[in-house]
Amino acid sequence: MTVLVQGISQLVTNDPALGEGPLGVVRDAALVLDGERVLWAGTAASASDVGADERVDVGGRAVLPGWVDSHTHLVFDGDRAAEFTARMAGEAYEAGGIMTTVHATREASDEQLTGLVQARLAEMLRGGTTTVETKTGYGLSFVDEVRSARIADATCDVTTFLGAHLVPADFAGDIDGYLDLVCGQMLDGVLAALSGPPGGYFIDVFCEDGAFDEARSRRVLAAGQRVGLGLKVHGNQLGYGPGVRLAVDAGATSVDHCTYLTDEDIDLLAGSSTVATLLPTCDLSTRQPAAPGRRLADAGATIALASNCNPGTSYTSSMNLVVALGVLQCGLTADEAVRAATAGGAAALGLTDVGVLRPGAFADLHVLDAPSHDHLAYRVGMPLTHAVWRRGKQVA
Amino acid sequence: MTVLVQGISQLVTNDPALGEGPLGVVRDAALVLDGERVLWAGTAASASDVGADERVDVGGRAVLPGWVDSHTHLVFDGDRAAEFTARMAGEAYEAGGIMTTVHATREASDEQLTGLVQARLAEMLRGGTTTVETKTGYGLSFVDEVRSARIADATCDVTTFLGAHLVPADFAGDIDGYLDLVCGQMLDGVLAALSGPPGGYFIDVFCEDGAFDEARSRRVLAAGQRVGLGLKVHGNQLGYGPGVRLAVDAGATSVDHCTYLTDEDIDLLAGSSTVATLLPTCDLSTRQPAAPGRRLADAGATIALASNCNPGTSYTSSMNLVVALGVLQCGLTADEAVRAATAGGAAALGLTDVGVLRPGAFADLHVLDAPSHDHLAYRVGMPLTHAVWRRGKQVA
Ligand SMILES: [Zn+2]
Ligand SMILES: [Zn+2]
Repeated sequence: MTVLVQGISQLVTNDPALGEGPLGVVRDAALVLDGERVLWAGTAASASDVGADERVDVGGRAVLPGWVDSHTHLVFDGDRAAEFTARMAGEAYEAGGIMTTVHATREASDEQLTGLVQARLAEMLRGGTTTVETKTGYGLSFVDEVRSARIADATCDVTTFLGAHLVPADFAGDIDGYLDLVCGQMLDGVLAALSGPPGGYFIDVFCEDGAFDEARSRRVLAAGQRVGLGLKVHGNQLGYGPGVRLAVDAGATSVDHCTYLTDEDIDLLAGSSTVATLLPTCDLSTRQPAAPGRRLADAGATIALASNCNPGTSYTSSMNLVVALGVLQCGLTADEAVRAATAGGAAALGLTDVGVLRPGAFADLHVLDAPSHDHLAYRVGMPLTHAVWRRGKQVA
Repeated sequence: MTVLVQGISQLVTNDPALGEGPLGVVRDAALVLDGERVLWAGTAASASDVGADERVDVGGRAVLPGWVDSHTHLVFDGDRAAEFTARMAGEAYEAGGIMTTVHATREASDEQLTGLVQARLAEMLRGGTTTVETKTGYGLSFVDEVRSARIADATCDVTTFLGAHLVPADFAGDIDGYLDLVCGQMLDGVLAALSGPPGGYFIDVFCEDGAFDEARSRRVLAAGQRVGLGLKVHGNQLGYGPGVRLAVDAGATSVDHCTYLTDEDIDLLAGSSTVATLLPTCDLSTRQPAAPGRRLADAGATIALASNCNPGTSYTSSMNLVVALGVLQCGLTADEAVRAATAGGAAALGLTDVGVLRPGAFADLHVLDAPSHDHLAYRVGMPLTHAVWRRGKQVA
């Protein structure tokens, strides 16, 4: 069945062949959907030549590709609001941190964890996010990482194995012993639990002072690469460091955080196909400086914007806010920020059929309660998500 | 008719006599409303002694006083999204600024302007804001300021006369001639248009380089004071300056922006009853530094948080975001930020029956989709407003 979507004041296709500028913007536009895919995109005037079984009018609103949130940590249980509030009040909060979440996650049943992930995905869908990557990393034991991967794979679009999130308390003082487990039995178990070939999945390592150093991070990436997983790095979040260099050297699909970048890091990213993923709500929620989006864009790096939704440092999945902060804090233009949260996110996941509204792509539509995507930063904080379509069906 | 509101996980009363800490927090609480006022507030356990005609259960959610947004500019027409986006892209945008809005506002009919203000108020109500101050200042002629004041007075809770917003193009080069008009005929016309005695209204002046200097600002405040209006100052937004000193000297109810404060300014505010009103979404939207909330709170100043909703520098009315930024950017604790956006806003307007949930106060309730107010910063950007009651009736 085909559906004509009309009354689009501004359509962001992300395909320069279809419209103006890098976002391929079409004004007074229409779309034709065929099942779960886009069949046609163009001006309303030329849409009359295209037949359709049904018509939907979005009333003069902007239509964007659904957000592609390429970096989240959704598989967890437990509450850390009190820890967050204490940190904001400048109080030391000794207990807690990631291990609080690890304990609660290990204790939750499969059904509880699955339900929590599904509730978070539903919240994200209502916020315009139609493609979600999520990571393991709150299990940190063989059984709990394998089950986290299974739950992530069953619920989210892309799953990333993050056994190397940190060294769990049970392995305190034995980093390499823990990495033997991560790169051996745990990796094998995760692979066996996944429903598709390894090429559609990622391995990730937290390369930072206090987490894993450069040599150990390289070991994790090499183990993942050996079995055919895509590579990701958490790096340069808390200070300057080797994360970006390591990611580019290893041919990683993305390096995420990128809050502290030297000029050399920026040049490396601009000269590579590694996507620089910025997480502005994380920097905001940890009272860190903003990531240097402007410098990255000026150098020509490919940028993704993602929410880093997690219970410790960014318990929000609002990509509308992420995009606004990409503009207001990271110095991107409105066009650059929207592209980074759609096509940029897709690039960070190696996907080509989301984050774009051209014939053949998935019909994932984000209808804004605004005449253009400019309003996302201009009206920061306002509820601008009017409707959401995923795979050709209106879901919010 | 009385209504028992139960199932409240956390009630913020803002009355230390009713509960814990400066927010007067009651856990497992209940409220009894009588018509448009609060009749009783306390623990659910003790509520059984209080009779009520009706019962409503909020399902284990937090209840706060509705937001008191003490600084907005809602009476305007025209769109400035393109100007905003160009500024974010680093482009000079010669035409425009406030005069764009002034032209569009002057051209709008009374009905159009009233409808626009009402639509903005409805949006604010849906976001948990139950008391709204708004300013004139996009008319800047006798007839247009008088009509803006009339429309503001007819639609909003508190009206502020801001003829001294800037010198309109028609008076270019004749600042004092324009102030003769503002302090004379325009002020008289505004007073005549208001529905109540002057003590419930304010006069405001933009005291800043490029707007009005200290002596001229003092003249405006003196003219307002002579006729019995409360005093407000826009100051210290774009750099250090005399705004705070002037406001404290003149006994102003508030000085708003306070982005650039010397230690002397902080001491003056802490030693006075003048409220320091911070506008974090404005600082965010103009890529300015954050206002020094922590320093003000440590010194003991009374703080208000407001949206500054206006089409140029902060086109958002999300007080949920304002509160989150008060914590994340301005360094306030979660308690301080919530208090500043409720009781603090009331103090900035000289009101005692809003921003507080004690017997006798207006029954303005903000029900959060969260177990505590901590989530406003912890889950920044998420749609946390579950329900809103104004004057004893559920309106959203
Ligand atoms: Zn992360
Ligand atoms: Zn203002």
